[in-house]
This record gives sequence, C-alpha cells and structure tokens, in this order.
Amino acid sequence: MNKQPLLTLLSDFGNCDEYVSVMKGVINKINPSARIIDISHKIPPHNIVAARFCLMSAYDYFPQGTIHIAVVDPEVGGERRGIALELANGFLVGPDNGLFSGILSQHYVITAVELTNNNYWYCYTPSKTFHGRDIFAPVGAHIASGIMLQELGTLIDPTTLVNLNLNQCIYFTDRIVGCIQYIDQFGNLVTNIPSTFLKNKSWYVQIGSLRINSYSTYTEVYLGEILALISSHGWVEIAVNQGNAQLRLQVELGKKISVEW
Amino acid sequence: MNKQPLLTLLSDFGNCDEYVSVMKGVINKINPSARIIDISHKIPPHNIVAARFCLMSAYDYFPQGTIHIAVVDPEVGGERRGIALELANGFLVGPDNGLFSGILSQHYVITAVELTNNNYWYCYTPSKTFHGRDIFAPVGAHIASGIMLQELGTLIDPTTLVNLNLNQCIYFTDRIVGCIQYIDQFGNLVTNIPSTFLKNKSWYVQIGSLRINSYSTYTEVYLGEILALISSHGWVEIAVNQGNAQLRLQVELGKKISVEW
Amino acid sequence: MNKQPLLTLLSDFGNCDEYVSVMKGVINKINPSARIIDISHKIPPHNIVAARFCLMSAYDYFPQGTIHIAVVDPEVGGERRGIALELANGFLVGPDNGLFSGILSQHYVITAVELTNNNYWYCYTPSKTFHGRDIFAPVGAHIASGIMLQELGTLIDPTTLVNLNLNQCIYFTDRIVGCIQYIDQFGNLVTNIPSTFLKNKSWYVQIGSLRINSYSTYTEVYLGEILALISSHGWVEIAVNQGNAQLRLQVELGKKISVEW
Repeated sequence: MNKQPLLTLLSDFGNCDEYVSVMKGVINKINPSARIIDISHKIPPHNIVAARFCLMSAYDYFPQGTIHIAVVDPEVGGERRGIALELANGFLVGPDNGLFSGILSQHYVITAVELTNNNYWYCYTPSKTFHGRDIFAPVGAHIASGIMLQELGTLIDPTTLVNLNLNQCIYFTDRIVGCIQYIDQFGNLVTNIPSTFLKNKSWYVQIGSLRINSYSTYTEVYLGEILALISSHGWVEIAVNQGNAQLRLQVELGKKISVEW
Repeated sequence: MNKQPLLTLLSDFGNCDEYVSVMKGVINKINPSARIIDISHKIPPHNIVAARFCLMSAYDYFPQGTIHIAVVDPEVGGERRGIALELANGFLVGPDNGLFSGILSQHYVITAVELTNNNYWYCYTPSKTFHGRDIFAPVGAHIASGIMLQELGTLIDPTTLVNLNLNQCIYFTDRIVGCIQYIDQFGNLVTNIPSTFLKNKSWYVQIGSLRINSYSTYTEVYLGEILALISSHGWVEIAVNQGNAQLRLQVELGKKISVEW
Repeated sequence: MNKQPLLTLLSDFGNCDEYVSVMKGVINKINPSARIIDISHKIPPHNIVAARFCLMSAYDYFPQGTIHIAVVDPEVGGERRGIALELANGFLVGPDNGLFSGILSQHYVITAVELTNNNYWYCYTPSKTFHGRDIFAPVGAHIASGIMLQELGTLIDPTTLVNLNLNQCIYFTDRIVGCIQYIDQFGNLVTNIPSTFLKNKSWYVQIGSLRINSYSTYTEVYLGEILALISSHGWVEIAVNQGNAQLRLQVELGKKISVEW
C-alpha cells in the first residue's frame, strides 16, 4: 500500500460548479493521504470518444499504481455497469461504456470487477445522477487504501467490456487510410494513423482534394500555414502554425483522411 | 493540529490570471504541509448567491476539520467585515456578506470572530483590492497550523452574521411553492424545494403554464426531452436529457415554480 | 533537499486536453513527493508578454526554493534554448524566450544553464512539439530531487538571456508616461507605472483625451463607473466597478497612457 497514493480524475463536469471538488472531498474523507491530479474536466459533455482519447494519451505518463477515475457517463442511472480494472501499471475506475477502451487497446487487464459491493460506496443507496461522487470516487479511494478489487464486487470477463467501435486504419502499399480521432482545444486534428510506419518516408496527408505536406515541427512553415506532422502523442496530426486547423478545414471527428508517400 | 491539513478555495477570480495561485503560494509559505482543493474559481463575478449554493453543496463532503476559504467579495475595500467561523466539522474564512449563510442554515457556529489581528495577515497594511491574498489565505493557513480563532480577532455574535434574504419555500397540502436557487453550467435548474416531502408521491413541476413530469433519472426520457427529478444535492431539479433547461425555458435565478402532486 | 518540494506550472495549454496532466504525471514519476500548483494554463496562446507578467506577479508569493516551470513556447522545435535558472529564492525552468524577464528585472541570477544533458529528460530524443513533457517537467522534477543545475547542462552567461523589449516608463516632474502592460480576464488594465512615486499625490490617469480620476478602492465609485487605482500587484490600474475597462475604452496591450498630478 502506497503511503501517498496518486489518483487522477477525468470527467465532463466542467470547472464552474462544485461537482469535481465534491469527488475530491469524498476521496480525502476515505483516504486522507490521497494526492489527486486532474486530467481534464472539460471533456465535451457525454463525449466518450474524446474521453477515451485523453485517457489513452495520459495513461503511460503516470507512475506505477496510479488510480484513474473517469466519469463521462451519458447513461448514468441506466443499465451500464460500474467497473474497476487492474492493469500491470495502474487501476481504472468508472462506467463500462468504452471510456477505457483506448487504454485497453494497449494494455492487458489483470483483474476486472463489476462494482456491486455497496459497503465501499459513499452511501448504500447512491444518487441516480452522480455515481462519480457516490460510487467511483469512494471506490478509487478504497483501492488507494489497499482494498483488493475482488472485495469491490463480482469478477467479470474482460472480453465483455464495452469497446468503442472506432474506425481502424487500413494499410496499403503506398498509403494508409484513417480518420480524425480527436480535435484538441486549439483545433489541431489528431488522426488515428500511428507514426510507426512513416520513418524515413517522405509522406503527405490527403484530405478530400487537398494535399498537406509533412514537416517535423510547426516552425518550419510560415505563421498561418497548414502542415502535417507527428503529434506529441505519436499520431499523424494536421495543424496550422499558430492557427486553428479545424476552423480552416471545417472538418469533424471521424473525417476520413489518408497518408501517402 | 493536523499534519497535512486540508483547505479549500472558492472565488470568482477565474482561472486565467495568477490570482488563485498567489493565494496558494501564500498558504504554503505559512504552512508547507497544507493540501489545497479548489471548489470553484468560476463563480460568476460578484455572485454571492451562486457562491453560497456551491459552498453549501460541497461542505458536507469534506473531512472533519477542513478549512474553507471563500472570496466572492463585491465590497472589498468597503465596510464589510472579514470573519472566521468554527463549526462542528470545519472552519470558514472570508468576507461577512452572506457567502456562508447556506452552510449556516444547516450547521451551528461554535465560534465566530471578526478578523482584526493583523499579526496573522500577509502584511500589516493589506491591499484594498485583494483581501484573499493578504487576509483570508494567510488566516486560513494559520488556522491550519493550529492557531485558535480567538487569536485572530474579536469574538462576535453569530446572530449578527449577514444572511442572504433568499425566498423560502411555502408549503401547502397539495403543493410546495419555491424558486430556482441555482443554475449550473449545463443549464440545469436547481430549485430550493427539498426532496424530503416527495417520497412515495407522484409529483410534477408547474412553471408558468408548463407542467413538467418527474422521473428518477435522465435516461428515462428521450434525448432532448425536459424532465423534473431529484438532483444529486437533494433538491427538485429541472433538466433536459443531454440538453440545457435554462435555454429551453428562458428562465432566470429566482423564478417562481411549484411542485404539485 | 526538500522532503515535499513545491513546483508550479504555467503554460498556454488550456485546461481541456490532457497536456498539463501529462506534465504532472511525468513529475510524479521522477519525484513522488512533488507538490504542484498551477499558476495558469490559460495564458493566451503564444503570448509571452502575458506569461511574463503572470510569472512576475506570482513569483514573490511562493516559498523559498519553489521550482517554477513555464511553457509558452511559440518557437518549440526551433532554435531557442531550454534553460534552468537558480535565483536567491527559487528556480526557473523553461524556454529562453523572455518568459522570465519580468522576474529577472527584480531578482539576480545565481546560476544559469542551457539544458543540454538528455540524461535528465523524459527520453533521449524529445518530441519536437512537447518540450514541456519531455524536457522541462522532468528537469524541474530532478531539481526538486536535489540535482544541481550544473548537472543539467552547460553554464551560460545570464546577460545573454532573452529580454522582452517592453516599453519603459518615462519620468517627468509632473507626470509619468507608460503603457498598458497586462489586461486581466475581467478587462482590468494594468499599466507599467509603479505606485511608488504616487504616495501623497493627488493623481489621475490621462489616456488619449480622457481623464480618469484615482480612488483607493472600487467601492468609492458607482457601479459601472470607471476609475484609476493601485492594483494589488502595486501598479497603476484602470478599472470599472463591477465592469470591464477594456471593453469600455477599447484599448489594447501596449496602449500609451500617462499618470499626472
């Protein structure tokens, strides 16, 4: 058991109301040594796809044993399960709606439980609209205190976890076809094409009839010029030097693009 | 004295400028073990009513002994008092302008002082525009270090504390008349009608000529449909499933509504 | 070496995406005892002048030994150096682009290094677009763990550090001419004229043909009325009581003003 365990929070609760702080208060009531880092609370409301990307992008940068609590939950109060997962280097707690499927595409699950034991909840009968406060935050805090996952509920088969049905890349000999999987707050367009296949190639992005040349960094093009590059996450990205690529190209999440060479 | 005391901050300072971090720096200068949780810094500027609601909604979820510093202060530099209050399970520090009157409607005051002893301030002559930095943050940090309230200033009579003159509910045999007391960032309308009286009743909300049926959770209605439900705070709330009730109904804080059955 | 070292972060990364949390994860991987305070992540994108002001305004309020990591970096991936600086009461880590020149106008540099030793980076070959994660956060964490600056790279001459070429005040016998050096999120206009010279004077601000009288606090004028006062940072400021002076006067950063008496 970690003396000063680290937890993270991700939600679509925003940072205007007191909701996030209430989850932190609940965690500290159960485990006064907990340290908490916010990943983001400005996920667009109910946008599980964006949440999945942020979690996947952040996960590997946290220490061994970090407990990630995520609550983007359009079906709160409905039928979806609450889950806790143990992976080789961390724990995941939240609704079973695909939030964690990006992390799970890169990491194996050691133990998976459905959260059914209300002894570890904030109250025996949780609110129907705020499981973050009543179930997920307290469960995360109890994991931080050393409670085993098996105590928290029923063991479940990890292959039954919800997986978001995102478009996969298609690989050809002269190109890879993919899509925009995330648009960050600055309008940078992150594709689902990994950089791994592009080493030592002279590549460009084709989006509709537009061809966008690749560079290694923003400063190689003029202010306001569009470019393709490898994002800091390791994906092919479309950006505008000190500008907004989403506004420039008027594209949306899921838009088909290809990388050619 | 707590080894790693917990403080919270609430203000209308926003999160663009350095103001909030300065309060945290000052707290850490005085008490290097302090842990700090933000409740919100995006209270609408000078909106004491919203701040009062957020504080009241968050207070009970924090551990015994938490020190809450709140600064929404339209009259900073004017005549209002600075106060520190000790309750059974926490401390409150801020201006005496009604900010804390929601918490005080639910919890007794053990000790109340007016902050007059500038030995516990950041400087003997505080800035006229930033009492958060110069008075409230340092006073909170000193309480975290075990300083007794009596040291911080003059004892005052808790019945003289400013109470916001909010509308109270009126109870009839077949309905309760109340008002909208808070609108959250998603446009959910939180009324001042507590859920306590509605158990086992089939109730609905009447707002002007519109009748809104009650459900137990968002997912029981279609996307975009309006509903009434019990909020996670325990109040009657009007919401739209994955939508914005304030925009739909075009209502404002204080709007009269009734719950009927 | 501090047992629970304090670090601060300032950037233009916003608080929607996971970027800031990734820096915090990296810091905690290297130094699990690190405590981290956000100064701001909503600096306007690439606005080094605003970042410089926020850092300068916050610096003195943090404890001895605090490590400030700042990343507003329009030339990331270009030619600018990464630096770490030791001052009498703290450390600064970030790009050498003038970010720190406000602090350095008030504090001497003891040691300055260019960050060239990639043994202290997150990876030997950093991303070209996210030096915050790959260089500055890990370097800050290593300083927090007691690594000497000399280990981190090559000693450099502090006089070669980039200094933003901001307008200086000009002092006359009956007035001081300066400019707007910062506009906060509420539209308050902070000038670069220090309050030091104004004691016991009856002064006013002249901006174009408009004369703005000085008061000691907002509440001395009517709601919506414009006034000049000494800001909490100690500069002459132009504000509107519960309003927005920038919108009222339609001025921009750098606008010339004078204080007369």
